Amino acid sequence: MIKITLPDGTVRDFNAGITGLEIAEALSSRLAREVLSISVNGEVWDLHRGLTSDASVKLFTWEDREGKETFWHTSAHLMAQAIEETYPGTRFGIGPSVETGFYYDIDLPEGAQLSEKDLEKLEKRMLELSRDKQPVVRTDISKEDALRMFSEKGDLLKTELISELEDGTITLYNQGKFTDLCRGPHLPDTGYIKAVKLTSIAGAYWRGNEKNKMLTRVYGVTFPKQKMLEEYLTMIEEAKKRDHRKIGKEMELFTFSEAVGLGLPLWLPKGAQLRGFLEDFLKKIQRDFGYDQVITPHIGDVNLYKTSGHYEKYGKDSFQVIKTPAEGEEYMLKPMNCPHHCEIYKSKPHSYKDLPVRMAEFGTVYRYEQSGELHGLTRVRGFTQDDAHIFCRPDQLKEEFKKVIDIVFIIFKALDFHDYKAQISLRDPEKPEKYIGTAENWDKAEKAIVEACAEKGLKTFTVMGEAAFYGPKLDFMIKDALGRSWQLGTIQVDYNLPERFELEYTGADDKRHRPVMIHRAPFGSMERFVAVLIEHTAGKFPLWLTPEQAVILPISEKFNDYALSVSNKLKNSDIRAVVDERNEKIGRKIRDNELKRIPYLLIVGEKEVESGTVSVRRQGGGDKGIMSTDELAGFLREEIKNQLTGLYN
Amino acid sequence: MIKITLPDGTVRDFNAGITGLEIAEALSSRLAREVLSISVNGEVWDLHRGLTSDASVKLFTWEDREGKETFWHTSAHLMAQAIEETYPGTRFGIGPSVETGFYYDIDLPEGAQLSEKDLEKLEKRMLELSRDKQPVVRTDISKEDALRMFSEKGDLLKTELISELEDGTITLYNQGKFTDLCRGPHLPDTGYIKAVKLTSIAGAYWRGNEKNKMLTRVYGVTFPKQKMLEEYLTMIEEAKKRDHRKIGKEMELFTFSEAVGLGLPLWLPKGAQLRGFLEDFLKKIQRDFGYDQVITPHIGDVNLYKTSGHYEKYGKDSFQVIKTPAEGEEYMLKPMNCPHHCEIYKSKPHSYKDLPVRMAEFGTVYRYEQSGELHGLTRVRGFTQDDAHIFCRPDQLKEEFKKVIDIVFIIFKALDFHDYKAQISLRDPEKPEKYIGTAENWDKAEKAIVEACAEKGLKTFTVMGEAAFYGPKLDFMIKDALGRSWQLGTIQVDYNLPERFELEYTGADDKRHRPVMIHRAPFGSMERFVAVLIEHTAGKFPLWLTPEQAVILPISEKFNDYALSVSNKLKNSDIRAVVDERNEKIGRKIRDNELKRIPYLLIVGEKEVESGTVSVRRQGGGDKGIMSTDELAGFLREEIKNQLTGLYN
Repeated sequence: MIKITLPDGTVRDFNAGITGLEIAEALSSRLAREVLSISVNGEVWDLHRGLTSDASVKLFTWEDREGKETFWHTSAHLMAQAIEETYPGTRFGIGPSVETGFYYDIDLPEGAQLSEKDLEKLEKRMLELSRDKQPVVRTDISKEDALRMFSEKGDLLKTELISELEDGTITLYNQGKFTDLCRGPHLPDTGYIKAVKLTSIAGAYWRGNEKNKMLTRVYGVTFPKQKMLEEYLTMIEEAKKRDHRKIGKEMELFTFSEAVGLGLPLWLPKGAQLRGFLEDFLKKIQRDFGYDQVITPHIGDVNLYKTSGHYEKYGKDSFQVIKTPAEGEEYMLKPMNCPHHCEIYKSKPHSYKDLPVRMAEFGTVYRYEQSGELHGLTRVRGFTQDDAHIFCRPDQLKEEFKKVIDIVFIIFKALDFHDYKAQISLRDPEKPEKYIGTAENWDKAEKAIVEACAEKGLKTFTVMGEAAFYGPKLDFMIKDALGRSWQLGTIQVDYNLPERFELEYTGADDKRHRPVMIHRAPFGSMERFVAVLIEHTAGKFPLWLTPEQAVILPISEKFNDYALSVSNKLKNSDIRAVVDERNEKIGRKIRDNELKRIPYLLIVGEKEVESGTVSVRRQGGGDKGIMSTDELAGFLREEIKNQLTGLYN
Repeated sequence: MIKITLPDGTVRDFNAGITGLEIAEALSSRLAREVLSISVNGEVWDLHRGLTSDASVKLFTWEDREGKETFWHTSAHLMAQAIEETYPGTRFGIGPSVETGFYYDIDLPEGAQLSEKDLEKLEKRMLELSRDKQPVVRTDISKEDALRMFSEKGDLLKTELISELEDGTITLYNQGKFTDLCRGPHLPDTGYIKAVKLTSIAGAYWRGNEKNKMLTRVYGVTFPKQKMLEEYLTMIEEAKKRDHRKIGKEMELFTFSEAVGLGLPLWLPKGAQLRGFLEDFLKKIQRDFGYDQVITPHIGDVNLYKTSGHYEKYGKDSFQVIKTPAEGEEYMLKPMNCPHHCEIYKSKPHSYKDLPVRMAEFGTVYRYEQSGELHGLTRVRGFTQDDAHIFCRPDQLKEEFKKVIDIVFIIFKALDFHDYKAQISLRDPEKPEKYIGTAENWDKAEKAIVEACAEKGLKTFTVMGEAAFYGPKLDFMIKDALGRSWQLGTIQVDYNLPERFELEYTGADDKRHRPVMIHRAPFGSMERFVAVLIEHTAGKFPLWLTPEQAVILPISEKFNDYALSVSNKLKNSDIRAVVDERNEKIGRKIRDNELKRIPYLLIVGEKEVESGTVSVRRQGGGDKGIMSTDELAGFLREEIKNQLTGLYN
């Protein structure tokens, strides 16, 4: 008998040799149907592998990242099997699971090529093979045998991989006529895979090295139910509609110009306004929380970044140094605002009574990204962080962390992000040499973070060993309206920069002490946040944040004057209204302005002019009836008030 | 007889050979006493030089730039004479007039050196020489004779200068025993110079080239009356007190860090707040005037600046290009915002109905200045322009110009600049080849500027030939509280960039037309404007603009809680108040906070706590008596309201 410890701490006795699937069956028949893989003492295993000694286990279903990974990994093998059948002689590189789905890098035989149509055929074949419920079987193999086997097959890619492995660690997985070199784990059989979609084809250099051969990368995604695939495809369709690049263009929020440079956004008037509202909103909160705004330049002497360590990190693969006519003088575009803020901290002496100093800046930083990595506003080369640095005493860490969490909560509430969690990244307790700062300070800081999150009732998960070398951190993940996860704000403790910049304060003991720094950016960056906000709301921002809150649509040009008088009245009530004065049909005007996502469409014609009213349409929300301008202004102000009150509770 | 045309257009007949001084005598005896030089057909002459043919003339007094220049130029010769007497063998470089006063670069004989005390002796000697009323006599001399003369004297600096001149153009000026190579013009005699102050000594390379010998540069200033010198010295004293670098430090507005880099200001919390208020103020005005804010990156592809022509202008002597890991990819720190705005203009098509497009940005630009040229916030390497570009039809130029003038008026009124004028810079009508754009467009633009200024009642003076090659412009000069002139905002017409960027709009004729651009920056830059504002107000900003409007000074620590409650109440009334909680004597607290230029000092002790009041002191304005917090808030809001109402009229 062996003792198996379950995640809830209960221990059960089983016969040695019991498999994950059998454990699941012993627990519940439903679990047995849903389980996909098992972790045994932290290592993910196949469900058919026998356990021979005491162990802690966790069973994974589709709900778990690990469950999906197993599912998609087996799907990659299934696709490879279909490809090998259809295109004999294909060589196989690697075929991992990814964020959503999987891919396989393949080297097709001379002359073969894949089209959309071929993908459809492969999908069909995969489903046939899955219906056969082929068992997926794991075998240990010696390096020598493995090399011989793949050499005979002529798969040079696999033999290259095998030659780098250690003897005694090599396993094969086989289903039907297909055998792959693989560490696993895998599903018990191919029958689990009920729905298949091969999504795209791309080129990829073997092992990511552009000196190597270009392989064909086939992407796919699979599901345990056909319905889930359909939902997924709908979601993808919806995501395309919500693509911030598309909506940003329709709403005239931002643009890019090749002449200015790739990845360097130009914020158009409405985008700049939107961003300004977000900045003002956060500035006000920060003022209430005792932050001071500062402004620093976008460049700094190279030596500043040598002091901070950023030169080492960003120097080579980023924007290069800027020389000047003076010999030896070199500047760098700032990749981070912290060194400048450290210099401001140093510009005068500090006493323990002055701390915490909370220094905020909407600071634009520049970091080079490969042109292929650029994507709308989410991956850019210049972006503005809603940055702040808190210089505090070690005993103030927890309180400061809690206050930053409060700010994040206020922002999420105001912008309608209800579904979020946070990752606490702590040090690897077994590798203390990786980290700067005393163990005592680390203990304090980690405890401060964990306690701060608990006291604030924040849903968190903890990852050991994910802390930066200079301190533990907390990252916020939000789920958007489509259920997609985005990483937004970060709160990061830092013992390193205070050390490098020799920051000090005078303690109550009249001695010099080193402050702790907290880096924090609740939005992350204005660019990324606006992108996420667009995709989350499909461009239908909360009324308080919308650059144009109402548009007045005269039925014909002769009502333009009346429309202008309405817009002026609304402006006097602090409502941002515009008039569509174009000589167009009302239907066209409505369509065009709906595309601009203006929340209120106010139609005016003969009737409205006579009664001094407007016909109110809420975008997507239908007819709101006839209102006087004053009624409407009151109505809109009320909506805005409701959006912005109670945020601090 | 010759015909002499006076500036008012009247023509008088005089005998040929008449001098400037004689013309002045013929016009008025007062003018004859005050006249310093004369322009003859645009060239400035000595008053003793005879006119032999018809000419247009203008007589210059101390009130004219040209008059002062003549006065200070002769003063430089007078100083040189005193130096040559005192230090025989001194060689003389060049000795021009400058903004205020003059200097002479001299090469003292081996072993000689000048101290403060020596300057005093030289001042005395100069006054003695001036009292002799030595006539200053102009002589034409051949190149050969000039070379011989200065060679014999051993003055290698002068012989170097002479060798570069053309024969037939060389003149000498002589007074007493001193003779100098000089183009003139000069005063009739040294007796005009009644007050002398030699202000400083500096080193200067011969001809500004660091490979040449280092000469001694002696600066001085002279006046026609002793009282004027005294006033000037008082003004200098006062200016030192108002030095924005000193006040900026005392008020904690900004700082510099060598680690970040020279000429790169770090705006401290209060400075950033002040700047923010100014920006918000202008943003609001601009919104009312139909401007759209945009945000663009601080770098751009080098080719963008090749298109704009800025690469040619700023490329070599400025910050160098920024390379990236991608071969051939090069960026530049933006020296101007216009290319980015042109790209935004180009991001969509425009119709004549959409114009003018008014695009504004507080855009931070970077231009390299020699480290020796840097000065506080007035000469920096990175600065933020309150920039905007108006893209309009040619027929809209005048109206747009008038609107910009209105904005400038509003700013000057809100910030208490009462004394200002504007320089209109037009093209040189005799050199049409120097300018881009059709003569017709230039006519229109120049007429538009002149008429706009006249219709707005702006005091202007016109300088022909001072227009940029791409368009005429208007520069605003303000006089500060000490009577010093500062150049602030600019309005500039531009035909060049629309051409280079191929900007277009569709006209009513359905054809493509080129818009005109107006560049304008009413503040000039935030850095320079804040510097001027500090020097103008000595740091005592209008209440609406002051970061900390009131400080509450508890007489002892036991009143701190009450002080905090007062500050909270004031904050709720939108008054920015802080508490000085330090455990210091009240006298010390008052002194420290006066240094910070906080306008209202509110003292609270036993009596105030009991009656729920504060004792109000206006900084520099004495005791305002006891007020309740509400009364005080009302009083301050009233002061702010008075400062900000009626600006648009």
